[in-house]
Amino acid sequence: MTPHIYFNSDIDSPVEWRDALATEFRAFTFSTAEAMDSPDAVDIALIWQLPPQGLKQFRNLRAILCLGAGISQLDPSLLPCHVPLARLVDDSLTRTMVDYAKTAVYRFHRAFHIFEQQSRERTWQFRPPTLTRDTSVGVLGLGEIGSSVAKALGDEGFCVHGWSRTAKQLAGINTYLGWGGLWQMLPRCKIIVNVLPLTDATRAILSSEFFSHCRDGVYLINMGRGGHLVEQDFLAALDSRRIAAATLDVASVEPLPPMDALWNRPDVLITPHVAGISIPRVAVRKVAENIRRALAGQPLLQQVDLARGY
Amino acid sequence: MTPHIYFNSDIDSPVEWRDALATEFRAFTFSTAEAMDSPDAVDIALIWQLPPQGLKQFRNLRAILCLGAGISQLDPSLLPCHVPLARLVDDSLTRTMVDYAKTAVYRFHRAFHIFEQQSRERTWQFRPPTLTRDTSVGVLGLGEIGSSVAKALGDEGFCVHGWSRTAKQLAGINTYLGWGGLWQMLPRCKIIVNVLPLTDATRAILSSEFFSHCRDGVYLINMGRGGHLVEQDFLAALDSRRIAAATLDVASVEPLPPMDALWNRPDVLITPHVAGISIPRVAVRKVAENIRRALAGQPLLQQVDLARGY
Repeated sequence: MTPHIYFNSDIDSPVEWRDALATEFRAFTFSTAEAMDSPDAVDIALIWQLPPQGLKQFRNLRAILCLGAGISQLDPSLLPCHVPLARLVDDSLTRTMVDYAKTAVYRFHRAFHIFEQQSRERTWQFRPPTLTRDTSVGVLGLGEIGSSVAKALGDEGFCVHGWSRTAKQLAGINTYLGWGGLWQMLPRCKIIVNVLPLTDATRAILSSEFFSHCRDGVYLINMGRGGHLVEQDFLAALDSRRIAAATLDVASVEPLPPMDALWNRPDVLITPHVAGISIPRVAVRKVAENIRRALAGQPLLQQVDLARGY
Repeated sequence: MTPHIYFNSDIDSPVEWRDALATEFRAFTFSTAEAMDSPDAVDIALIWQLPPQGLKQFRNLRAILCLGAGISQLDPSLLPCHVPLARLVDDSLTRTMVDYAKTAVYRFHRAFHIFEQQSRERTWQFRPPTLTRDTSVGVLGLGEIGSSVAKALGDEGFCVHGWSRTAKQLAGINTYLGWGGLWQMLPRCKIIVNVLPLTDATRAILSSEFFSHCRDGVYLINMGRGGHLVEQDFLAALDSRRIAAATLDVASVEPLPPMDALWNRPDVLITPHVAGISIPRVAVRKVAENIRRALAGQPLLQQVDLARGY
């Protein structure tokens, strides 16, 4: 079994992935746009985004293995629908997402966003610290990543609420279900962390209506997708101080264009889609398992249901 | 037993402390500079800093209970040396110190200090996240607070080193002893967290010599005292990029004067001495125990040895 792999990503390192795959397969070929095997030989596409021409040149493709936990960066009209598609949620992705959530939540909890501003303004203004149990955090989405984020924040002592589309039970987390549950949860949260997948049901969820249910001065952390956020509604909610400050790891267009109104605001921290990544030397075990399954004609792990969107 | 308490602090709330003491003592008096009992009646001084005239007006003082974990803000020449002095390290102080350390360490670990800068410059520059086990943190000081900080960072998965004056064993932490141990530890650390007490042995420890043993591009977090840091050496180490960035919670003069060179540098975050505080409703149990001990003529908990300095 010699996999013939085509690799395409702007954000993942081809060298690290090739080296990691070499620890799993004695023989394999590894093509990129720059160094291409015969397209007919390629049976696995390992990609973050699609190449501009799509994948139709690979006529013998057995699987598309997306390097992301979400697939909203893939234009569905360019996906060959007879080829199974899997997303990738591995331990290193989950751990980096959890760590990002902690970094962003602690930053608001301990008012570092205010002290950054004060440092630039040469202002020494004491604010007493508070205990984590007095800060409530609401997590939107309780899938594999969301439930790990909620549990980890609970372990830090935060008072954690969690919202999902299907009913979930998580020890120590107050869980809520459906739209009614969301409107119940939002006023209880000082900080909101979005880790939803982007689907037709969740697109534009972070809207004026959503913000109208939040408490005044809420903090928003968007680790989901840019398509969750209605930018005009968000800017209005910042200007009215309904949202006190936000951390956005995702944007509707990435890279976020230099003239976008989200840049250079003291109340918005932009991070360049760095919340989570699958680290090749850790994630390669999960990818190799899916390569073996694809070549053996078995169903993939984390196979995407395109109708559901994840 | 009716304690007569004199309270003095610029940073602690007299109202919260009075309310908290009321949960421990049925009867007590509570004096401040604004509302003073007869000075001869006062038997307990509960203070963060000394009043300008010192404490000599209180001729029947039985104990000085400092509200800080450190006592370097108290001028020893103004302390009546026949009155026992205690410092205060309680659970809420330790927990807020630990949380601050996590906030500051995660901020560097996940490069939020760089993304803050990029947000102001409208720059989207991807940097892949790394796992906590690939970030090494050195903790200076392994007393009650330092060992809690080291353990908590170890629980987050960081690779933790710890340095102390007297030998310490901590599960999962690489410990080092004395000056030789310090020079061994420093090159192994990407991030240094200082939680030492300020004593004659540790004053000005963060000096050119210290920085010369650090690796290039080290991150420094000072949660100890301003007197630990030699400001000119520190600025030189920043300018040469030996230190990549720093978070300073303490300054040699507090509030840090507006024209100080530490302000408004992209590589220095100043926080206004907020790392840890004893939260009255939590810490009052420890304070009440020391009040009872003082009135009963017993030795205090956390009594300070002025020769040692803590």
